[in-house]
Amino acid sequence: MSIHSVRREQCHLAWDNSIAPVVRIQSGQTVDFDCLDASNGQLEPNSTTATLDSLVFSQLDQVNGPVYVEGAQPGDTLQVDVLSIKTGGWGWSALIPGFGLLADEFPEPALKLWKLDQAGGFAWFDQAKGIKIPLRPFAGEMGVARGVKGAFSTIPPYNTGGNVDTKHLTVDSTLFLPIEVEGALFSIGDGHAAQGDGEVCGTAIETPMKVTVRLTVRKDRPYTKTPHFSTSVSDKDEQYYCTTGVEPGMYLDYVTHWTSSDTSRPCELDMRKAAQSAVRQMIDFLCAEHKLHRTEAYMLCSVAGDLRLHEVVDMPNYVVGMMMPQSIFGHAS
Amino acid sequence: MSIHSVRREQCHLAWDNSIAPVVRIQSGQTVDFDCLDASNGQLEPNSTTATLDSLVFSQLDQVNGPVYVEGAQPGDTLQVDVLSIKTGGWGWSALIPGFGLLADEFPEPALKLWKLDQAGGFAWFDQAKGIKIPLRPFAGEMGVARGVKGAFSTIPPYNTGGNVDTKHLTVDSTLFLPIEVEGALFSIGDGHAAQGDGEVCGTAIETPMKVTVRLTVRKDRPYTKTPHFSTSVSDKDEQYYCTTGVEPGMYLDYVTHWTSSDTSRPCELDMRKAAQSAVRQMIDFLCAEHKLHRTEAYMLCSVAGDLRLHEVVDMPNYVVGMMMPQSIFGHAS
Repeated sequence: MSIHSVRREQCHLAWDNSIAPVVRIQSGQTVDFDCLDASNGQLEPNSTTATLDSLVFSQLDQVNGPVYVEGAQPGDTLQVDVLSIKTGGWGWSALIPGFGLLADEFPEPALKLWKLDQAGGFAWFDQAKGIKIPLRPFAGEMGVARGVKGAFSTIPPYNTGGNVDTKHLTVDSTLFLPIEVEGALFSIGDGHAAQGDGEVCGTAIETPMKVTVRLTVRKDRPYTKTPHFSTSVSDKDEQYYCTTGVEPGMYLDYVTHWTSSDTSRPCELDMRKAAQSAVRQMIDFLCAEHKLHRTEAYMLCSVAGDLRLHEVVDMPNYVVGMMMPQSIFGHAS
Repeated sequence: MSIHSVRREQCHLAWDNSIAPVVRIQSGQTVDFDCLDASNGQLEPNSTTATLDSLVFSQLDQVNGPVYVEGAQPGDTLQVDVLSIKTGGWGWSALIPGFGLLADEFPEPALKLWKLDQAGGFAWFDQAKGIKIPLRPFAGEMGVARGVKGAFSTIPPYNTGGNVDTKHLTVDSTLFLPIEVEGALFSIGDGHAAQGDGEVCGTAIETPMKVTVRLTVRKDRPYTKTPHFSTSVSDKDEQYYCTTGVEPGMYLDYVTHWTSSDTSRPCELDMRKAAQSAVRQMIDFLCAEHKLHRTEAYMLCSVAGDLRLHEVVDMPNYVVGMMMPQSIFGHAS
């Protein structure tokens, strides 16, 4: 236990450097946080899809804090060592209309509730089919206040962090954030029990969490202008099945005989289309080969599949991959 | 050795279904290919940066083939099992003006030559600094002819494959390609000794290669509309240092107080900006912490760093990460 702690009701809904700190610490000290899930307690283990209809969006993605770190000055870097994370015993994933990489294709709300086996370190996605997800908990939100004045939504991430939703920020990882205001004003929240790179359906396995971090001011990293992190990966002989999206990002003269009906809509030509295509292909694959419903398949992509940019240079077409670990299907150890 | 082989001069410079096959095989048979590097022999172990000035671009990225597979019909899938790859003893990486994710920031040509230690399975990036790259060879180009008539450049990838430049297509991986013409008309080329996800500077460790693949027509995979693949990953406790780019992809009403000076240039708001920012940050980091020159750092990102889409849903901002394995610096085993 740390000498400093932040209670679950000590939270806020915007990155705003005028919010008063709830605790002040010395650089190098640790802080315990008790965080509700990203629905801010609106969803519970007995919620149903109907509950999604009454979600108050302005209450989502609260973060606990802010913590004032003595000595932190604009231009410094905040080192955040993730020391421990304990999730709740349950979690939820949802399709929220208008949200997610394939929002146009999934207009209906959907809710999935999870029982988290913390001792076993996994959650059943579908016990009958033998599909289970390893728990790799992390905080979706870790950030410091922005230097610019104003109240900025906690939903998008910023150069100062926030909702970076990065699966690699597990226990023993270290996050570095550029400090823009005196005291740094660090906050944290959005417990995730498991997620893939991309969080494509818009939600992970969302869960309450208790998390402890060490906060240290670094004066020797002036090059930290965006979130950086250090993490370890232990993919021991994991087998992946990958679907790709190959879609145009721009038009270049040196491409021979390139034609497309899309030339009137240049604004839509970006990596997003290739990423969408890769996810769409994985959903088709999971439905065909693993007999999942489309909604389930989309959620599975979000909690277990990794989006990677395989190539970003062979213009006009990008290749984005959705890589699904095969051990979740019980095919490998 | 296979009973079928394709010689290095049996190559072509466009995906064009009117090109006559150089060999015909039964489904399930293997083929040996002897491929020049992607410069089509224009670069050699004693080339210099000056050689880049005289590169004939229309001769780049040749592919060997095409191979006609009996029984292949439009709508089928071609299964490509990668059985063996032997690189040349040398390789090259280059910055080619106008090419690469940060083309505007690196206007000058640069060439790096590599000696490939095939027995040891690595190549020195900088022996004095102890930086070495593990060799994980693959073919940057594997594809089948497109159904549409015409000659399509071999530089961009397509839904039918081609220059997918995907680092995961190493020996023992299996690629699935949608067949659009009778006989499939498979070709291969562009030997890469090592590359990261993204190939951000535009080149990998480019090398000649001898490669053997098994080609099998699959009638049971109607959902294969883009390249899919199966591969294994063995990242045993690898430590990664990651820089991120956090940049806007679109503007949405629900974002509180969102402001930007970029609103007049909506076409530039895409994932590409976040990917560029992540790479730019890694270059800054490598220069500061590992005392590399910017050109070297950019090449190192291309041959060893992985671009991942950490989150693609918390609009308007994407988070893209450039993950650099730390074992290349000799810090881990």
